[in-house]
Amino acid sequence: MGLPMAKNLANRTPSVVAFDSNPTACAEAMACNIQILDSVQAVGERQCDVLISMLPGDQAFDTVMTEWRELFARAGNTHKPQTILNCSTVSPSTSKKWQESYHLHGGHIVIDAPVSGGVKGATDGTLTFMVGCQSHEDLDKVRPYLDIMGKQTFYCGPPGTGSATKLCNNLALAAQMLGICEALSLGEELGVDPVVLASVMNTSTAKCWSSEVNNPHPAVAERMANKPPAANGYVGGFATNLMLKDLNLALQAAREENVALPLTSTTKELYHLAQKHGLGDRDFGIVLSFLRGKSR
Amino acid sequence: MGLPMAKNLANRTPSVVAFDSNPTACAEAMACNIQILDSVQAVGERQCDVLISMLPGDQAFDTVMTEWRELFARAGNTHKPQTILNCSTVSPSTSKKWQESYHLHGGHIVIDAPVSGGVKGATDGTLTFMVGCQSHEDLDKVRPYLDIMGKQTFYCGPPGTGSATKLCNNLALAAQMLGICEALSLGEELGVDPVVLASVMNTSTAKCWSSEVNNPHPAVAERMANKPPAANGYVGGFATNLMLKDLNLALQAAREENVALPLTSTTKELYHLAQKHGLGDRDFGIVLSFLRGKSR
Amino acid sequence: MGLPMAKNLANRTPSVVAFDSNPTACAEAMACNIQILDSVQAVGERQCDVLISMLPGDQAFDTVMTEWRELFARAGNTHKPQTILNCSTVSPSTSKKWQESYHLHGGHIVIDAPVSGGVKGATDGTLTFMVGCQSHEDLDKVRPYLDIMGKQTFYCGPPGTGSATKLCNNLALAAQMLGICEALSLGEELGVDPVVLASVMNTSTAKCWSSEVNNPHPAVAERMANKPPAANGYVGGFATNLMLKDLNLALQAAREENVALPLTSTTKELYHLAQKHGLGDRDFGIVLSFLRGKSR
Amino acid sequence: MGLPMAKNLANRTPSVVAFDSNPTACAEAMACNIQILDSVQAVGERQCDVLISMLPGDQAFDTVMTEWRELFARAGNTHKPQTILNCSTVSPSTSKKWQESYHLHGGHIVIDAPVSGGVKGATDGTLTFMVGCQSHEDLDKVRPYLDIMGKQTFYCGPPGTGSATKLCNNLALAAQMLGICEALSLGEELGVDPVVLASVMNTSTAKCWSSEVNNPHPAVAERMANKPPAANGYVGGFATNLMLKDLNLALQAAREENVALPLTSTTKELYHLAQKHGLGDRDFGIVLSFLRGKSR
Repeated sequence: MGLPMAKNLANRTPSVVAFDSNPTACAEAMACNIQILDSVQAVGERQCDVLISMLPGDQAFDTVMTEWRELFARAGNTHKPQTILNCSTVSPSTSKKWQESYHLHGGHIVIDAPVSGGVKGATDGTLTFMVGCQSHEDLDKVRPYLDIMGKQTFYCGPPGTGSATKLCNNLALAAQMLGICEALSLGEELGVDPVVLASVMNTSTAKCWSSEVNNPHPAVAERMANKPPAANGYVGGFATNLMLKDLNLALQAAREENVALPLTSTTKELYHLAQKHGLGDRDFGIVLSFLRGKSR
Repeated sequence: MGLPMAKNLANRTPSVVAFDSNPTACAEAMACNIQILDSVQAVGERQCDVLISMLPGDQAFDTVMTEWRELFARAGNTHKPQTILNCSTVSPSTSKKWQESYHLHGGHIVIDAPVSGGVKGATDGTLTFMVGCQSHEDLDKVRPYLDIMGKQTFYCGPPGTGSATKLCNNLALAAQMLGICEALSLGEELGVDPVVLASVMNTSTAKCWSSEVNNPHPAVAERMANKPPAANGYVGGFATNLMLKDLNLALQAAREENVALPLTSTTKELYHLAQKHGLGDRDFGIVLSFLRGKSR
Repeated sequence: MGLPMAKNLANRTPSVVAFDSNPTACAEAMACNIQILDSVQAVGERQCDVLISMLPGDQAFDTVMTEWRELFARAGNTHKPQTILNCSTVSPSTSKKWQESYHLHGGHIVIDAPVSGGVKGATDGTLTFMVGCQSHEDLDKVRPYLDIMGKQTFYCGPPGTGSATKLCNNLALAAQMLGICEALSLGEELGVDPVVLASVMNTSTAKCWSSEVNNPHPAVAERMANKPPAANGYVGGFATNLMLKDLNLALQAAREENVALPLTSTTKELYHLAQKHGLGDRDFGIVLSFLRGKSR
Repeated sequence: MGLPMAKNLANRTPSVVAFDSNPTACAEAMACNIQILDSVQAVGERQCDVLISMLPGDQAFDTVMTEWRELFARAGNTHKPQTILNCSTVSPSTSKKWQESYHLHGGHIVIDAPVSGGVKGATDGTLTFMVGCQSHEDLDKVRPYLDIMGKQTFYCGPPGTGSATKLCNNLALAAQMLGICEALSLGEELGVDPVVLASVMNTSTAKCWSSEVNNPHPAVAERMANKPPAANGYVGGFATNLMLKDLNLALQAAREENVALPLTSTTKELYHLAQKHGLGDRDFGIVLSFLRGKSR
């Protein structure tokens, strides 16, 4: 995800510098006139206006944030406060923790701004950002960058609420997909043509993105104009593994806040079983196949 | 439901006759120039072109169908074949069983045409019908009546598929509502304003009827133009008891067809627990309150 | 199951007659001096003191009971009242329905007496019977036969309670097995030797038949004196398919009685998924493998 | 729990010193000739052979361990390596983390030894310890203390496995209790006397501690010799809140290890809902009442 986002930035703003642990990504970035530095620390030392992170999860984010904080502490007053724009999906409590910690240690601002839209949205510059930060003023500081990388930005509230909004949207989405899969699975056995069932649902109270845009039934998907992954063996799309990661973050947040999420728990376990049965790298609509006994 | 449907028919077609076990409904029907007969049997004896049934479930439907079949058998060849339009939600196998049985015993046609839209849709004549029958020709025989009582009719396929489609739509709907409830419940504890969360979801991949039209959070519902039941203590709307009935029918059909519905099972149990805790007569969005510890 | 039960009876009582739709079973029975009749009806015509049924489920039981009732009705007063001992597992409401119907039509007694103990118990004459009937006197009429086929008989109460007890025992058993599987699965990943974990559980509050006698972990099973199916690729034992059948009957009874069974619903769905993934003919302990991603 | 454990130690070994944040507990301990110190730090400074911790959870344990480690670091070589015996239930990864950290920083030994047996077991000195540590030699160092406080000690394996074993036992126990509750709930509605059902299960394959020792049905509990909490409004016993805490720890460990625990997830959610409905301080058998619609 980070590479296409950096490319879009480099096309529109001067002097983008970057680091990635993956050398292939670095090489490709250099080919697009992005200066590649040696390390996370080297990026921190540049005293850029905005530091943007796009990392696989809480642990990687913790590592980078710890490194930068130590760097800033060593630099002391010679280091001006910076804005860190975290586009990774991390848990709301992690996001909040660092926003508080950085604020206390030198007045830095940390903004949580997880995205939706996937690799395609990152490439096309059409991502959606869900932003949590102290104020609209803080958001304004990074808005020019968000506008380059995406087409929609939601201000969700104080630190952590951007992450929270992303996780809440995705837990509802995960349940919707599974509900549509079960409806299509039962309907077909009862003799309803899945194309007919999908069309009825799409004009009725069960309509949702998973029935209308990302329909998980191959027979329905093949007849749609914008063919979703189900038309192509569930390749591409939003991987089951990534949905599982978000569901785990949502359940962890729920535990911290003492919120009961019985449906989300079941949903998570089903995607987890699908992953255990070898389907983790396919679009999460493949859970339809899993319910019917398919593994790899 | 039967009364407003009959009223709309009586407004547009002559000579509607009816029977209901509820004397109040009968009295109100008579006030609208509907002739009330003494019994289910008396209705059957009238040799109307179309017999319309609107009954609480499989058992009541079985009773009526048994009675009429015996009546028709006694009458023999003097009784012309009739069309029975069943608007009750019954299990697909029950629907199929009677369609076959009536066809064998005298060439009668039985059509399953369960509705969505609730009492309001029945009153306004804006119901949606999901129709299962042998052919489009059979559907054409009842279409004039469907067009009076509703605004949309879907032909779903052979006998039983109307019922199947209704149940499939509603199981997906039930999961969507619960997913939205869990998202709103977690979001609020994480500091996201429910109005903000709902508005983000409604422009994103979690958008559905339960977030957009029938939002279950009172704070969101109160700010909507068409206030859903959550704005009014969950009075009105689609009762938890009725959703529970449909989920039970879906699970029974799944058992007969050997379909695994793990999410629907969890969904059903949660609505069932809400009912056990005294919330059965409220709109099914009240499951949001149940998750947070509310009972009556 | 019926064959070894009949053999044990024939060894101890004269004049056992029988019918089975499976010719191989009939041939083997004849070799053991059991007289094989032509049909279910022929068995009913013999006017034996006790008729014993061992059938695959509700539907087969309904068919046989319908046939016999019609036979008895035709025979009228010349046919003395009989005792029907049903050892099949059927739903409590089916059991109750026939007990009432037969009592009304000629004073016949129907006793529900489902078994536990499997093919091995049937062969060894060590089955356990859970009996539902009107009185201890009714039970005494069949006790000599129960004592030949089994070693333990529980009087559970009025008609239907034998079936109910069997289903209740088995739903608890199904959850226990899954709980033990999840404990062993998590423990192993956390570095606990499954043999150690099993031995701690077996002296602690998690001890149960599924940890102590039918332990589902191959490494534990191999070290036990009486090797359970997990020591042998889950061949033999109590098939996942049969457990699934009992769980479906329990859930159906729960629906009829408006009882919420959330854990049993989840349990049923997991065995169902295991069956969908090709594991239905193996001992139900194979759900441990299923959780870890194994299919056939 | 800490108080009765300390009392038993003080009865048998000289010079027990202690600290607790609860002044009432401290006062009672002083009355039993236990010297109370001012702080966690003061306890650490005493250079006792063994430090025993009994704390409410991971967070409190982390705080104490951080404090002591800093203390030991400041003291440097003048501080001899100590053995820390942690009897709190914490997550296996937390236990492992501190065992490694203390070993690296000065050769201290940390042993995880969570207990079962509750306040009664602590008072009577009949606790069961599940121990994780590097070797049997390490266990031998604390065995004299374990033998005073408990009657059974299991060596479960390397660091973290004591905690793991405790959590695995309890997740199986939680599912067993719920399974027994559902069996008793369904059985009663089907007309089976709960006393009869319990007695059949207790001689059959569903027998477990939750049916035999801690039966959750009041009618059964009242007739038992050692009356379990269900005989007394579910007061006493193992609180739903504590079971919920253990289930959350188990699920967190499962997430870290990528283990699917679908039944445990459902189980956790049901205890969580019971807690949300005001039943958290009662014995976890009260989930039987919750399933039937009871709240406080």
